[in-house]
Amino acid sequence: MHTTEELQQILDTAIQNLKFPDQPKQLYEPISYIINLGGKRVRPLLVLLGTELFGGNARESIHAAMAIEVFHNFTLVHDDIMDNAPLRRGKATVHEKWSTNTAILSGDVMMVEANKNLAKVNPVFLKDVLDTFNETAQGVCEGQQLDMEFESRNDVSIDEYINMIRLKTAVLLGGALKLGAIIANSDKKDADLLYQFGENIGIAFQLQDDILDVYADPEKFGKQVGGDIIANKKTFLLLEALTLAQGENKATLEEWLNKKNFDPQEKVAAIKQVYSNLNIQDIARNSMDAYLQKALTVFEQIQVDDSAKENLLELTNLLMAREY
Amino acid sequence: MHTTEELQQILDTAIQNLKFPDQPKQLYEPISYIINLGGKRVRPLLVLLGTELFGGNARESIHAAMAIEVFHNFTLVHDDIMDNAPLRRGKATVHEKWSTNTAILSGDVMMVEANKNLAKVNPVFLKDVLDTFNETAQGVCEGQQLDMEFESRNDVSIDEYINMIRLKTAVLLGGALKLGAIIANSDKKDADLLYQFGENIGIAFQLQDDILDVYADPEKFGKQVGGDIIANKKTFLLLEALTLAQGENKATLEEWLNKKNFDPQEKVAAIKQVYSNLNIQDIARNSMDAYLQKALTVFEQIQVDDSAKENLLELTNLLMAREY
Repeated sequence: MHTTEELQQILDTAIQNLKFPDQPKQLYEPISYIINLGGKRVRPLLVLLGTELFGGNARESIHAAMAIEVFHNFTLVHDDIMDNAPLRRGKATVHEKWSTNTAILSGDVMMVEANKNLAKVNPVFLKDVLDTFNETAQGVCEGQQLDMEFESRNDVSIDEYINMIRLKTAVLLGGALKLGAIIANSDKKDADLLYQFGENIGIAFQLQDDILDVYADPEKFGKQVGGDIIANKKTFLLLEALTLAQGENKATLEEWLNKKNFDPQEKVAAIKQVYSNLNIQDIARNSMDAYLQKALTVFEQIQVDDSAKENLLELTNLLMAREY
Repeated sequence: MHTTEELQQILDTAIQNLKFPDQPKQLYEPISYIINLGGKRVRPLLVLLGTELFGGNARESIHAAMAIEVFHNFTLVHDDIMDNAPLRRGKATVHEKWSTNTAILSGDVMMVEANKNLAKVNPVFLKDVLDTFNETAQGVCEGQQLDMEFESRNDVSIDEYINMIRLKTAVLLGGALKLGAIIANSDKKDADLLYQFGENIGIAFQLQDDILDVYADPEKFGKQVGGDIIANKKTFLLLEALTLAQGENKATLEEWLNKKNFDPQEKVAAIKQVYSNLNIQDIARNSMDAYLQKALTVFEQIQVDDSAKENLLELTNLLMAREY
């Protein structure tokens, strides 16, 4: 069993060793570009941790981990086109740096590269690995679709929102862990429990994102605090506030949501005041804690020694203890 | 062994039975839409014919055939965005009917659906099937990239053009046949020969397309004869003419290629006259025949009874005898 630091080392080496053809340059350069923008590599790490949880060696699941990382980066490239995003990790997005057509086609070939990596796993597990990967990939696409649809809808319920972030974010964490479990030849029931653990952690993680966007320490937060509020983004907090607000709170919310010209700081302060009146931060934290708790309860049921579980629990604590 | 008509029946039924989720509607409706626009279904038919060539039953490769058909339609959806095409088979393209974002994301999920179908093949052949499919898919993306790059280049050689159509069109025919062969557990050498047969047929077929666009019977041709000429499309014919033309022919070609305002019929007539002066039609037909001949020579080397080869030869003759 490796330490998490060793696993990260294995991952870094594998990512550096990802080789793409030289030609056509326009097709393959964007792939190296987006992958080398960095990121925490949490998803491929989950694949390796999933394997080692059940006594497997991370090196057996390194190709599946690469598949997950390349797939994740593919979704970033295509999502950035759809979201019209100029920046990704502080650098120009692929469609900005090259063109939309390049971003579409390089993204497509990344999907193929992800599948090529997947095809390298031990053939004994290949069918199960493919089924889990494809189900995950499909979920992620559905999540992005719902996210886009929600932008123009005014009747998004909390349940719909949770389902959207489950698909867009959480199934990939669950899927990554399950791939690792499959390759370690785990018990099927345990693999499913691990998937559920990942999915619930993913939801909790996204709710934490929503909370931090409003309540993070501006000194430490990597981006503008209140960005979601300024953009009228339908986060858990806003949807919850829209559900609960009545009278003056409701009027204030609607006024600011409809305002075209405003001082951003003023808007953030006004909406935060409504959130405070309605106890939104507490509600969001309670919901986040409930998903985290559900994840941990499921995790406990997995039939392996507690010592084997330490790395994953540590990572969970690390992820959930973000203040920025 | 089935007749080609029976195989087409099997395909039609399988295509009708392709089921996609109901929700999100915006994500899945475009998939049914594009697949039901029709088409000759040549590529999935090649999968089935590849299997039956080696004594397999087409029903064993029906999922691979569906994977190829869905993948092909995925490339149409994304290519149409990149080529800014308003129509596909006489109907609105997906990005026109819905939106570019929908076309990107529905295309992405079609790629996943293709892979889901692929994962249903007999696990014994899965690794080989995936490797062939992924290599094919990668080639198709590279071909599309080269095709786009050629639009803004003025120094495209005939060899580069042949390589582009090989990747964009021909590898998918070769790949489809090879998938069929793999699933029939054919000899590896025979599967590779069959791939080469398909690739060469594909190149011949595309050259025929280039020829027909200029010389088809306007009464029978489904689209405007001379469309490639009007659009300055870098076909085999134009590239060959640019290579050979000197003096007056060269001047006429360049004049019409650079003209912004012109009568389409006049342009088609003028360029056709240059083609005629330079014997371009014969040169193109000779090149097409050479690829067809190469395909047939390779096909002869495949170690199965002549009777098993009849269906594929018949389809080849049918495809290559198009007059429109």
